Amino acid sequence: MSAPNAHGEVRQILDMNAFRPGDTKAQAVERRLANLGAASVLFYREPIEMVAAEGAWMTARDGTRYLDFYNNVPSVGHSHPKVVEAVAAQIAKLNTNTRYIVAIVDEYLEALKTHLPDALSNVVMTCSGSEANDLAIRVARAATGGSGIIVTETAYHGNTALVTEASPSALKRGSLPDHVIAVPPPGAGHFGEDIAGGFRASVEAAIAEFARRGIRPAALLADSIFSSDGIFSDPAGFLRPAVEAVRAAGGLFIADEVQPGFARTGEAFWGYARHGVEPDLVTMGKPMGNGFPMAGMAARPDHLASFCTDVGYFNTFGGNPVAAAAGLAVLEVIREEGLQQNALETGRVLLDGLRDIAAADARVADVRGAGLFIGVDLADEETGRPDADFTVTVIDAMRAQGVLIGAAGRYGATLKVRPPLCLNREEAERFLTAFRAAIRV
Amino acid sequence: MSAPNAHGEVRQILDMNAFRPGDTKAQAVERRLANLGAASVLFYREPIEMVAAEGAWMTARDGTRYLDFYNNVPSVGHSHPKVVEAVAAQIAKLNTNTRYIVAIVDEYLEALKTHLPDALSNVVMTCSGSEANDLAIRVARAATGGSGIIVTETAYHGNTALVTEASPSALKRGSLPDHVIAVPPPGAGHFGEDIAGGFRASVEAAIAEFARRGIRPAALLADSIFSSDGIFSDPAGFLRPAVEAVRAAGGLFIADEVQPGFARTGEAFWGYARHGVEPDLVTMGKPMGNGFPMAGMAARPDHLASFCTDVGYFNTFGGNPVAAAAGLAVLEVIREEGLQQNALETGRVLLDGLRDIAAADARVADVRGAGLFIGVDLADEETGRPDADFTVTVIDAMRAQGVLIGAAGRYGATLKVRPPLCLNREEAERFLTAFRAAIRV
Repeated sequence: MSAPNAHGEVRQILDMNAFRPGDTKAQAVERRLANLGAASVLFYREPIEMVAAEGAWMTARDGTRYLDFYNNVPSVGHSHPKVVEAVAAQIAKLNTNTRYIVAIVDEYLEALKTHLPDALSNVVMTCSGSEANDLAIRVARAATGGSGIIVTETAYHGNTALVTEASPSALKRGSLPDHVIAVPPPGAGHFGEDIAGGFRASVEAAIAEFARRGIRPAALLADSIFSSDGIFSDPAGFLRPAVEAVRAAGGLFIADEVQPGFARTGEAFWGYARHGVEPDLVTMGKPMGNGFPMAGMAARPDHLASFCTDVGYFNTFGGNPVAAAAGLAVLEVIREEGLQQNALETGRVLLDGLRDIAAADARVADVRGAGLFIGVDLADEETGRPDADFTVTVIDAMRAQGVLIGAAGRYGATLKVRPPLCLNREEAERFLTAFRAAIRV
Repeated sequence: MSAPNAHGEVRQILDMNAFRPGDTKAQAVERRLANLGAASVLFYREPIEMVAAEGAWMTARDGTRYLDFYNNVPSVGHSHPKVVEAVAAQIAKLNTNTRYIVAIVDEYLEALKTHLPDALSNVVMTCSGSEANDLAIRVARAATGGSGIIVTETAYHGNTALVTEASPSALKRGSLPDHVIAVPPPGAGHFGEDIAGGFRASVEAAIAEFARRGIRPAALLADSIFSSDGIFSDPAGFLRPAVEAVRAAGGLFIADEVQPGFARTGEAFWGYARHGVEPDLVTMGKPMGNGFPMAGMAARPDHLASFCTDVGYFNTFGGNPVAAAAGLAVLEVIREEGLQQNALETGRVLLDGLRDIAAADARVADVRGAGLFIGVDLADEETGRPDADFTVTVIDAMRAQGVLIGAAGRYGATLKVRPPLCLNREEAERFLTAFRAAIRV
């Protein structure tokens, strides 16, 4: 098992189940390593070469078809024809920047805003969730005059310098800077039954520690389903007291919706909405354009203006009309195909099925989640401790049965069940069958 | 005229020629302001609504066609059919991340690397030039153990927190942090005839100042055609002594090719190549995908590895196969259509024509550039001083004649002549005709 800290998505992938030189002689892999070097993050010890994808399925060069339970970017389904057509049509017509008015950009922003709190009426479009979180932290600092950022201990919020500082899971060594404090996530047994109270107390302790350091808090930055921490969804509402605590100390709440946003949790369009809170800033990304690179940050006009007083912000690609076309198509598909409702219903099939399996096998220690975002803790049968080695074994066994899935959590022992929102019941059953077999390997 | 400092691209646009509420009642503009708020950067006091674009031309809603001399993103031409087809075909087939092998990604990286120094054999794909520069600064710091960054005084390198700190032109107020020193750019009369020696001396003075501050230099970060500073191209070779100076002090040279890269300067594929230097890190962006959001950083494997020792780096959208398809199409179009040669030849038509105009009009104070990247200084006829107000008048008059163009430089008094690389001779003549008329307004 790996070290006891800093084990989110990125590190888990790098350390635990990643290709290492020498594992295979495959020319394609050597070629990739020669091109990307130390920044290579190929999945599996024997990486897969993909050639096509459709719906919830990806096809490898050898013809094998895989059910994709890993990647939540192609959220309305790989190669969705509506998104493909929207991108192809707009890129053939006009692709420019926000220095000019292009109707589809405002049409998209207005469609997006129907899903957001009325107060957050300004949306800054960026290229990546990292850029959105980088901007949100600075907006929070400008708006509050504080600098302290509170995150959870295995959080991942992106890859810029500023956001990496606030992403404990990205650090391989070293420690967080003084203006970042990582608190235990609301789950993983940290707070017993009183998750809401315990998490609030954690945030209050961080605020008190900031005070000792002479730092004013700027924000609580949280992925509202705590993906990298291991997926903590319940009880809905647990975020609210912590948000109240940070606001009482003069800080803002930044909801990082890069993972849970866009209907994935089934119960709501955004993860934060399950908790009965309205964030001060909302960041979004991955599924926003179903793979077209786009992301954004929603803010109150006064908060955004306080940032723009000091610094000019322009994003060359952010808010281009092709991104708007992709984003608009995603919103339409979610609505037309009822994907939020499908996430709820198909998510329930998965949750029930996984809980049945857990009831019969001590190595499946916990199952939790909302909609099509479910965490499954895998543990050592005898000690009950998180078992990262067993998790890798299960991931490999799932692959052998045609299912792609990754892990998360402090110990890298939580399976991230995160298929496209178009997953149907038959595909859910197929996953459950594969999982039942995988844990018997 | 505006204040004497921090006047690059972003500030110029925000302050000098930008829409302000009340200037027009146009509903489309009010709508945009409601959506983007303080982050709005609409160009022109009466912004333009665009509906289509092709080659070097953009079409507004009212049917007016504009020659685009402003935007260097659609570098091989707006809506280029080869790029459009490549994107449409790939996005319909497969769009995923670099955790899987996809042949077109490595095919693209290998094609790109044929243009790069052999030593820079690792390329990290990102979504934006900002992300590329953010990463490059951190790689330089990890590789050198230093933290000091030397930039030019009106530089713009992007919009993340770290890169904004190294972008004096983005700051509306406040000062640079201790680890960033801005030096005068190699031109604008700072160093008389000895630009190479003067710029080297500036960089050496910055290194000495870092030593006084107890800071080790990490890098000289320079846009190799100094776009935001006002476009300084000659004499070719002037960068070399400064690069030698920063290396002698243990720092690296990061060539920011976001603006000059991809054949724009005509004389070379990258701006740095005109100066006979091989950078330690090369960043690239804007024209890389002709508008498809993509960017990258090329590095030596050992430099990249030294960064990846501390931090895991993964970019969800970076290096996706659709970006690779777009990037590959751009490289093919540059080659097939001979766009580097065209930049040289058509750039020469513009340069000669502009110099003829300058010889006859004292308000055109200087004309300089390489290929299709030319700076034109506009000055007060009597004092000879940079004239930002006249520049705005000329920009508006050019627009009235159907030419889109922006400004740069410390005083916002340098026209940035930056059309697509497919510009033909007739279009160049049309620009010259419009410019002749514009300065007589």
